[in-house]
Amino acid sequence: MTQIYFAATPKQWPLYRDTLAQACARLGLDVTITQNAPDPAAVDYIIFEPDGVIQDFTPFTNCKAVLNLWAGVERLVTNPTLTQPLCRMVDPAMTESMAEYVTGHVLRYHLGLDGHILNQDGIWRHDHIPPIARKRPVGILGMGQLGQAAARALHSLNFPVMGWSRSEKSLHGIETYHGEAGLVQLLSRAEILVLLMPRTPQTENMLNAARLALMPRGAKIINPGRGPLIDDDALLSALNSGHIGHATLDVFRIEPLPAQHPFWGHPNVTVTPHIAADTHPDTAAQVLAENIRRGEAGLAFLHIVDRTRGY
Amino acid sequence: MTQIYFAATPKQWPLYRDTLAQACARLGLDVTITQNAPDPAAVDYIIFEPDGVIQDFTPFTNCKAVLNLWAGVERLVTNPTLTQPLCRMVDPAMTESMAEYVTGHVLRYHLGLDGHILNQDGIWRHDHIPPIARKRPVGILGMGQLGQAAARALHSLNFPVMGWSRSEKSLHGIETYHGEAGLVQLLSRAEILVLLMPRTPQTENMLNAARLALMPRGAKIINPGRGPLIDDDALLSALNSGHIGHATLDVFRIEPLPAQHPFWGHPNVTVTPHIAADTHPDTAAQVLAENIRRGEAGLAFLHIVDRTRGY
Repeated sequence: MTQIYFAATPKQWPLYRDTLAQACARLGLDVTITQNAPDPAAVDYIIFEPDGVIQDFTPFTNCKAVLNLWAGVERLVTNPTLTQPLCRMVDPAMTESMAEYVTGHVLRYHLGLDGHILNQDGIWRHDHIPPIARKRPVGILGMGQLGQAAARALHSLNFPVMGWSRSEKSLHGIETYHGEAGLVQLLSRAEILVLLMPRTPQTENMLNAARLALMPRGAKIINPGRGPLIDDDALLSALNSGHIGHATLDVFRIEPLPAQHPFWGHPNVTVTPHIAADTHPDTAAQVLAENIRRGEAGLAFLHIVDRTRGY
Repeated sequence: MTQIYFAATPKQWPLYRDTLAQACARLGLDVTITQNAPDPAAVDYIIFEPDGVIQDFTPFTNCKAVLNLWAGVERLVTNPTLTQPLCRMVDPAMTESMAEYVTGHVLRYHLGLDGHILNQDGIWRHDHIPPIARKRPVGILGMGQLGQAAARALHSLNFPVMGWSRSEKSLHGIETYHGEAGLVQLLSRAEILVLLMPRTPQTENMLNAARLALMPRGAKIINPGRGPLIDDDALLSALNSGHIGHATLDVFRIEPLPAQHPFWGHPNVTVTPHIAADTHPDTAAQVLAENIRRGEAGLAFLHIVDRTRGY
């Protein structure tokens, strides 16, 4: 009997209790799932998320893996007691949600939807006809699962997509860039920029004043990645000067974003409340069960975190 | 020397004069293009649009084809003097624009973008997480060039797409319907409905009170097709009762839509000023030139209008 300790935040328990039991049963796994603190030495797998109920992972001496419910693990990799194998959540529904959020906001900017949504004033403005998508270059920073899914969706709509990543990657139909020179090239052409890097010490404040200045005047920014990727003051300053035309931000250094934060009231910023890509319990439970199956069969875990990279 | 009479509205002349001459030259055609009224009997091809400078086509006795700059021909097919072959414009850039407009507004509804764009009030509403696109059925009425392009774009983003047409059609990945029974099935499931039928006597007021009542409560409607496809009073009534959640309308019985029309002020209607799919002169000129080449070579014209169907 495999012991699973559900140590994510308590609000997740009703969402996962049955779906996870069913997903395990479908894979033929004989498991007990508990939300109540069990004997730590008897725990085989911990399901976790930041702000979950464990601070010290040391007593879980026989734990084969810590399975995170979120894609981001920056608040877990800094915990020195967490020495067990750590897996990120790569939920297919979460990946699809992210691609949909990115595509929706890219099309919103491309088509100038706000101009219509906000100006229902009886004036027939048949003047600003947008170009077709194939003439609107979009840049994506980060070519992981989420970045690649967003790139594929935009490519299927004919946008010329440029993708940047830390290490060299290639993806069908996408112009890929890497390294500092590649970043400069991408930024200088991206009329719409999407941030999908993980949060690491290297990516903090990656989009700073100097890099914003490289972008075409009036460029739009979409950040559903991580708040600290952007230097907030540099962005506000570029928005105020008009160099950056608009920003849609889903993630912030402090969440919920405080009501008095200048992003909320800025006419050229749309704040969304960290909704771009939520984990969907039905599909996420299948990913958790599959990783437990792999652990029990002695196979390599999916989506394991590389501690030296931080993601 | 082939004589082309450019009889569209005068504002089009500067957009087409050079691009059309170049497109003809690239196909090896020896043409003269004039905007000034020529000897009617000497004209080989007329380029036209509704409100263009010809009412009576009778004197153009040697004209091989009338080439329309618009996709819609409902105001031309009723002209009894226009007996020459008539071609609609099927401009690849216009088709792409239409697919982009449809996809942008479908994603806008799917993701609930207006809720964020209109409510930047400092309140962090992390509650309404949309389902993924594969759980959001979209219906398209009209499976011509434009409907098919929109269907393909939505299908590539995983939306379950249902397409209805007058006569039976099939399209990879799309659930196709036809006939009255098919229309009932589609309407009863479509959470978002897109109208891309041509305007004919049969399609006028097609979306009437009875058909709106078939739709799921809160359904959204996008009409970039033709204004008269919808019974306006029935739509307003369904919006007022909340049965229809929102409508985005790009085309109207009278354009520009008068400032006092109730659509402008309605909280659940977005009016856009007939911008979904404009003809793009650079690509449209290539289509015109290709049809002239075909006419000169004795080949069948592209996109010829069937007068009995009306499109």
